[in-house]
Amino acid sequence: MTILDKIMKPKSIAVVGASTKDHTIGSDIMKRLTEYKFTGSIYPVNPKGGEIQGLKAYTNVLEIPGEVDLAIIVVNSKFVLSTLDQCNEKGIKGICIITAGFKETGKEGAELEAQLVEKLNAYGMRCVGPNCLGVVNTLPEIRMDGCFAESLPERGHIGFVSQSGALGGGILNILKDLNLGFAQFISIGNQADVNAETALEYWENDDDVQQMLLYMESIQNPANFRKLASRISKKKPILALKAGRSAAGASAASSHTGSLAGADKAANALLMQSGVIREYSLKNLFSTAKVFANCPIPKGDRVAIITNSGGPGIMATDAVCEYGMQMAKISDATKDKLRSFLPAAASVKNPIDMIASAPIEHYKQTLETVIADENVDMIICIYLPFLGLKDIDVAKALMEIKSQYPQKPVIGVFMTKSEFFTALSDMDVNIPFFMYAEEAAEGLHRLNQQRLWIERPVGNYPSYNVDKEKAASIIKQSLVEGREQLTTRESIDVLDAYGIRVCKSGFATTEDEAVSIADSIGYPVVMKMTSKTTSHKTDVGGVRVNIQSAEQLRAEYQDLISKLDAKGLLDGLEGVIIQEMVKGNREMVCGVATDPQYGHMMMFGLGGVFIEVMKDVTFRMAPLSDVDASDMIKSVKAYKLLEGARGTTPAQMDQIQETLLRLSQLVSDFSFITELDINPLLISEKTGEGIAVDGRIKVKMEDAKKALGCQCGCGELTCSCGGHC
Amino acid sequence: MTILDKIMKPKSIAVVGASTKDHTIGSDIMKRLTEYKFTGSIYPVNPKGGEIQGLKAYTNVLEIPGEVDLAIIVVNSKFVLSTLDQCNEKGIKGICIITAGFKETGKEGAELEAQLVEKLNAYGMRCVGPNCLGVVNTLPEIRMDGCFAESLPERGHIGFVSQSGALGGGILNILKDLNLGFAQFISIGNQADVNAETALEYWENDDDVQQMLLYMESIQNPANFRKLASRISKKKPILALKAGRSAAGASAASSHTGSLAGADKAANALLMQSGVIREYSLKNLFSTAKVFANCPIPKGDRVAIITNSGGPGIMATDAVCEYGMQMAKISDATKDKLRSFLPAAASVKNPIDMIASAPIEHYKQTLETVIADENVDMIICIYLPFLGLKDIDVAKALMEIKSQYPQKPVIGVFMTKSEFFTALSDMDVNIPFFMYAEEAAEGLHRLNQQRLWIERPVGNYPSYNVDKEKAASIIKQSLVEGREQLTTRESIDVLDAYGIRVCKSGFATTEDEAVSIADSIGYPVVMKMTSKTTSHKTDVGGVRVNIQSAEQLRAEYQDLISKLDAKGLLDGLEGVIIQEMVKGNREMVCGVATDPQYGHMMMFGLGGVFIEVMKDVTFRMAPLSDVDASDMIKSVKAYKLLEGARGTTPAQMDQIQETLLRLSQLVSDFSFITELDINPLLISEKTGEGIAVDGRIKVKMEDAKKALGCQCGCGELTCSCGGHC
Repeated sequence: MTILDKIMKPKSIAVVGASTKDHTIGSDIMKRLTEYKFTGSIYPVNPKGGEIQGLKAYTNVLEIPGEVDLAIIVVNSKFVLSTLDQCNEKGIKGICIITAGFKETGKEGAELEAQLVEKLNAYGMRCVGPNCLGVVNTLPEIRMDGCFAESLPERGHIGFVSQSGALGGGILNILKDLNLGFAQFISIGNQADVNAETALEYWENDDDVQQMLLYMESIQNPANFRKLASRISKKKPILALKAGRSAAGASAASSHTGSLAGADKAANALLMQSGVIREYSLKNLFSTAKVFANCPIPKGDRVAIITNSGGPGIMATDAVCEYGMQMAKISDATKDKLRSFLPAAASVKNPIDMIASAPIEHYKQTLETVIADENVDMIICIYLPFLGLKDIDVAKALMEIKSQYPQKPVIGVFMTKSEFFTALSDMDVNIPFFMYAEEAAEGLHRLNQQRLWIERPVGNYPSYNVDKEKAASIIKQSLVEGREQLTTRESIDVLDAYGIRVCKSGFATTEDEAVSIADSIGYPVVMKMTSKTTSHKTDVGGVRVNIQSAEQLRAEYQDLISKLDAKGLLDGLEGVIIQEMVKGNREMVCGVATDPQYGHMMMFGLGGVFIEVMKDVTFRMAPLSDVDASDMIKSVKAYKLLEGARGTTPAQMDQIQETLLRLSQLVSDFSFITELDINPLLISEKTGEGIAVDGRIKVKMEDAKKALGCQCGCGELTCSCGGHC
Repeated sequence: MTILDKIMKPKSIAVVGASTKDHTIGSDIMKRLTEYKFTGSIYPVNPKGGEIQGLKAYTNVLEIPGEVDLAIIVVNSKFVLSTLDQCNEKGIKGICIITAGFKETGKEGAELEAQLVEKLNAYGMRCVGPNCLGVVNTLPEIRMDGCFAESLPERGHIGFVSQSGALGGGILNILKDLNLGFAQFISIGNQADVNAETALEYWENDDDVQQMLLYMESIQNPANFRKLASRISKKKPILALKAGRSAAGASAASSHTGSLAGADKAANALLMQSGVIREYSLKNLFSTAKVFANCPIPKGDRVAIITNSGGPGIMATDAVCEYGMQMAKISDATKDKLRSFLPAAASVKNPIDMIASAPIEHYKQTLETVIADENVDMIICIYLPFLGLKDIDVAKALMEIKSQYPQKPVIGVFMTKSEFFTALSDMDVNIPFFMYAEEAAEGLHRLNQQRLWIERPVGNYPSYNVDKEKAASIIKQSLVEGREQLTTRESIDVLDAYGIRVCKSGFATTEDEAVSIADSIGYPVVMKMTSKTTSHKTDVGGVRVNIQSAEQLRAEYQDLISKLDAKGLLDGLEGVIIQEMVKGNREMVCGVATDPQYGHMMMFGLGGVFIEVMKDVTFRMAPLSDVDASDMIKSVKAYKLLEGARGTTPAQMDQIQETLLRLSQLVSDFSFITELDINPLLISEKTGEGIAVDGRIKVKMEDAKKALGCQCGCGELTCSCGGHC
């Protein structure tokens, strides 16, 4: 028995702070534990002793005669630490602290919580909370309701983690109405120890938990979450509602990637790469849970719709198509069979309209016929009440057929009175029922999404041969000069060191130098200024393209200098880069941004002047797998441009994918890189290669110095310790 | 009393086809009419006579002693026409035909329906149906339930029109659960006479109908619908669910505009320009109706959130922000007042978190304080059940405060058991209550949308001085040559005739001519081939840009000829257009497509190579008002480019707007134009003008010939009738 087992599957519970006073947590916890008929021993602990909920109360945990697996602590926060001492003395390792007044209240509370964590570690305890609603396990052998919600929990097979106690309680209240039940519930509160990842890992191999639901406001350890969730979600669906989207701390980023990134995009990428189904409302979270609770994962995305009324059939078709699923092509054999018993006015094409007069027998026969069709993966069955038919009888008939064909998902749409749904909530169902067609279509979409995730390859994290030392030395030079922002030239050189295809170029500080470099590259060329003070070059006319001759180059150079001079920007000018002019009008962008909580985010999408207007970009968290990189490329609208729309050369998708993976390797090697833009990554019209024409890299000085500074102990960027730095 | 009044507010009803046989429509209609206690006289008509529902049955309408306002007809379709004859003889003008078997069944039925319409016209009757569910008016002085739904209607102030009878019936069944009621309901069925527009106009000035809901699968007369709905929606909200989106008959269009258009985009544009709030699911249709039934239109979009629990407050904030509304800035005075009674742990910033311990008194005081704040336009009030508080008591307390402040919308979010909502359904409420925060936010968004529509200027339809004759003669020449597709040159000339800024150009059929034209325009120039057989020029290298000299022009010309020759496309070549080279890298698109049902759709958006990849375009139905045109320009993402992002010249918005309006005038004048593309409409970097650089116009030969052919009677394009053509 692990310590987590002691918390979630205890044989005995001490309630420290149990009370006889109504409407207090100490009283409610005791009531719930006893009402729900906990199968083990309950030991109320209260300094006054006496009797609570008919049980002898102990004045101290040490007085308790038997062994105690779990202590649920509801005493005032100032007594929590001493309670832990006593628990330790008693040998209790499982702790659930409901008491609030810790880090959620500010600085003092945070200090108290730090002391709490120290004690937990010292005592080798595991702990749920503090500042939480409690824990629940509905397994008949356990029956623990260690929560102070208004309602007793409903039995089911969902593992639920809530970061909001109140919300968890609210949900427990409405479970029955939703026809849903929990296996286990953990209100993680301040997550001093147990968090969402702990729960996911704990439930991974627990057969009683068949799907996991998360309500999260933050993700404590994104990398660990991704590692665990991406593995576990292949076995069981994980659904998450991640709140706090709008609070995204839009930091003032100077790069394109940075300005398009943000905490919610990071969370989104993380959940996507973890195979977690993200829902944006509680309503949808529960609807989807209801679907997973009653449906197998389908084999494909072909949907058949059976209805007794045209309008809802059309609405269901609309919704199925909008989710990108296919309307199943009913086989001729199935059509013949349907025609053999349906009236002439019925339609045997999908959506199958049995017309309003359809009796229960037609529902049964039609479902049985359609579910057996090999062209059909999933079914929506619609019922509108007509003269003489009882909704609940229709539902029962459908469930009877479904029980014989467990392999295909069926969802019922019953546009009928709420009494129907109330009646269902007391029944065992094998079909999820909804009021509206759109809800059913969304449910099938989620099943299909889970199917696609399961089928998706795990992916590899390739390691390329790169010139890491060269990249380090370029960055170091920038640091020595006190610059966090690398120049364009330095940035391009770092990319080049990592094997990223950059365009041929040279650096010039005079007109004559520029001409000589251009002559060696060959015309046409592009001229770009590089400056330590001006970051958006096009804003100041610092980019000149399609320069056809030495003569034109001289003219452009002179014009640039006089323009910068006029704007007072000449001082920052380092010189100009002369580049090969890569022909192509498809400009993509690759980049990296850093979220303070989530870390490196990779971006890919449509670049050039459109980048911030069209926002046709996608994000993934680094490190990227090859599958992630491939997904990124395919998920932007501009993918069609890459494929070679309207007679253009198809882009080299593998080479672009490799560019993303090499970038991922770069920021893994140099984790102090905070921002990176390749804009544009120009698609060569000649070869289809993605070529980095412009690059910007920014580092975090402090971290970069730590990583690249002398390791002899001095920490300086340049020292004479004998070549160690 | 109008004839429609005779149908919707009758004093006497004959039910022709009334029956005593259970589970027949003839029996159910009689039951509903009597059960719902119709206030006038009911005359069952059945050839057998006798008694039906305790009323004397007449063998024929002519036998009925008194006057009859409305005949509800449920006889077999083959007897419907003769029944109309008898009704006419009896002087009955109001008709509702429930009987099916008309045009919905195919050709024979359609013929029968045509005869039916003829009779209705001849007799001066108005008619609901055929193939419908019936009509309802819940006004206490009327109490007509002339429907065969399972349930009796609930009283309320919604006017509902349903094109699907079954759906209408389904809705009547669930109204009570939704806490909604109807004033009037019309199941329009096949719409032989009465349709959605009839209903909208009928309800425009009926105070008993305060909002209108439409379920539509098609719109019979889009222009008329737009005219009526855009006027009426300024007075009362009109909500529509338009089904059949996915069935969009994607016709094989050859133009960009055509390929991006489609029936559902037309429907969407039409509803938008009509001020109709489009919902995409029944669930949302009813949620929104519930909000309009219980909320005034707000004065602004600043939302305050009051909650007793953090999580749902965050979720509500997320949803409010995602709908583009503002989180209200609570005034300092309000904050002070809130602090005076809320506990220290409460947050008085928006969202206002009263914390879990909030008693009813805090709900009342907080709502009262916040509703009085001038910075607040709308309020979401969230309640999660905690120890000891009763949800229904909290709701009553909120409604009590709301009744004192009727001017601001308040929506309740009560995450509690379904019993709460069941209890509400028996009460008179002045606040809509939902289970989830997102539903409340969506409701406020709809209120705000209606506010914006009411505030939106009606707009003008300007008429410009154009050279209509010149345009006609150019098109005519194309017709004479048997071409539906105008050449690029012709297209540009037509646009020019309509005062649209096109770029300077000339047409050349030889190399020498090309050079001479280019010399007169001045370099750089663009050369574009024009061909009667090749429509997408860039696919065959038919566009050459930035030609700097006569020499370069000759080289490009020769290259084009040899390329076309190699591809076997030389035959179709008419020549080349030499154009001024307009400098600018912002390429927009304007266009017109034609939907067979909805007519001319105008398109505007991002053009160039991105058009079909990014699909950053918007549609409106022609004719455009100036406000429509302005909306179009502002509603695409590329608007930011037009504004002059990153140092580019701001576009001349007025001039672009005028371009759209002139196009609208062009297709109004020449309604046979089926497709039109201006791609690109290049934004000049110098002046910010939108300049039509390329144009394509296609007409419908038959209609064009009719419109432009000789009006002397011969109908020919060229005749010698004496100058009339």
